[in-house]
Amino acid sequence: MSKKVAVVLSGCGVYDGSEVHESSAVMVHLSREGAQVEIYAPDIDQLHVVNHIKGEPTKEKRNVLVESARIARGNVKDLATINVKELDALIIPGGFGVAKNLCSWAVDGKDCTVSKPVEDTIKAFHAAKKPIGLCCISPVLAAKILPGCELTIGQDTECEKWPYAKTAEALKELGCKHVNKNVNEVHVDVKHKLVTTSAFMCNAPIHAIYDGIGKMVKEVLKLA
Amino acid sequence: MSKKVAVVLSGCGVYDGSEVHESSAVMVHLSREGAQVEIYAPDIDQLHVVNHIKGEPTKEKRNVLVESARIARGNVKDLATINVKELDALIIPGGFGVAKNLCSWAVDGKDCTVSKPVEDTIKAFHAAKKPIGLCCISPVLAAKILPGCELTIGQDTECEKWPYAKTAEALKELGCKHVNKNVNEVHVDVKHKLVTTSAFMCNAPIHAIYDGIGKMVKEVLKLA
Repeated sequence: MSKKVAVVLSGCGVYDGSEVHESSAVMVHLSREGAQVEIYAPDIDQLHVVNHIKGEPTKEKRNVLVESARIARGNVKDLATINVKELDALIIPGGFGVAKNLCSWAVDGKDCTVSKPVEDTIKAFHAAKKPIGLCCISPVLAAKILPGCELTIGQDTECEKWPYAKTAEALKELGCKHVNKNVNEVHVDVKHKLVTTSAFMCNAPIHAIYDGIGKMVKEVLKLA
Repeated sequence: MSKKVAVVLSGCGVYDGSEVHESSAVMVHLSREGAQVEIYAPDIDQLHVVNHIKGEPTKEKRNVLVESARIARGNVKDLATINVKELDALIIPGGFGVAKNLCSWAVDGKDCTVSKPVEDTIKAFHAAKKPIGLCCISPVLAAKILPGCELTIGQDTECEKWPYAKTAEALKELGCKHVNKNVNEVHVDVKHKLVTTSAFMCNAPIHAIYDGIGKMVKEVLKLA
């Protein structure tokens, strides 16, 4: 029986939604491993819409579920309808959408709140002892919901630009153990069934990010 | 010296822009082969904006260059500024954006017109004997501009749904030779230095599409 994996998106585009290449890499690797993919996103407005050339917010309004459908090629469901019993694993790609639309990390840092359907979903997978894969900034979700977990967002010293700077430090302050890893490596927290990789958190060629996500997907499926 | 490859996008999302996964696959494979990537898109309004859940146009307006920046992570230039002399090859991923924003195939079929900067770009690469890689629906651009070329959009019999149906037939009517190929194969027209692969033109698992695009990228770089 092939494993059924939920992928939770947060929009479409690195600065206000899911990082496009991380999301695509997750889907390509799951497909290659023979997993079934079900894509979910919350049916809410984005925190804002960012012009990705200027890096500045516009006056537009866009819906997270509707924009996520651009990555999902239309095949995406409201996260509020997820049934964890029918699923074997959860993966959440990165992108600022995680820190803006799934939780308030982009505004509140380690004092952020995680949106209810996202919190419920992560708690349900964890309670059912089903694995969770997170990359880029999405490990902050685990740090808030699974205190004491082990994770990586890459290196705790190399990145200087907001929001990367001191992210690892903030995760430690939340009671997690941060493990330094290169972009093509993952950290597996066996106890929490949590697999993390840095992806675009630090500068790396896009194929290295693709490969790191491939390792994350394989480890998640091993634990499922 | 690493090859410098122009990638031309047409928005962000399969139904009104560049197909996200094809675009990402092009970028991952170019990165792995050590090529430098320069991303371009026309600075024009999209033909329309499609709600990717409903598959229906909305009343919104979006700009092709600005939306392409979601795939390019901000690093995209106006196609009007492209300097073919400084580039070694051209790749145009698929998606309805090609048939809506780069030419009028979605409306006019084989009687379509190709937008001026796109036509100029393809003609300039061809005149300079620099290779061109096209996938999914984007081979229609070559069919209009390089009559007599050989190309594939997959199989000429298997696909039944618009706009896939009879696309191969229309290409033949334009004076091209259509070569049936599977999703993990490419066709190389050595004379025209044109490399094509079907990608999402027919149903296939996403990793097979990724692999087919990988072959296209390798053949393009061999010809560069």
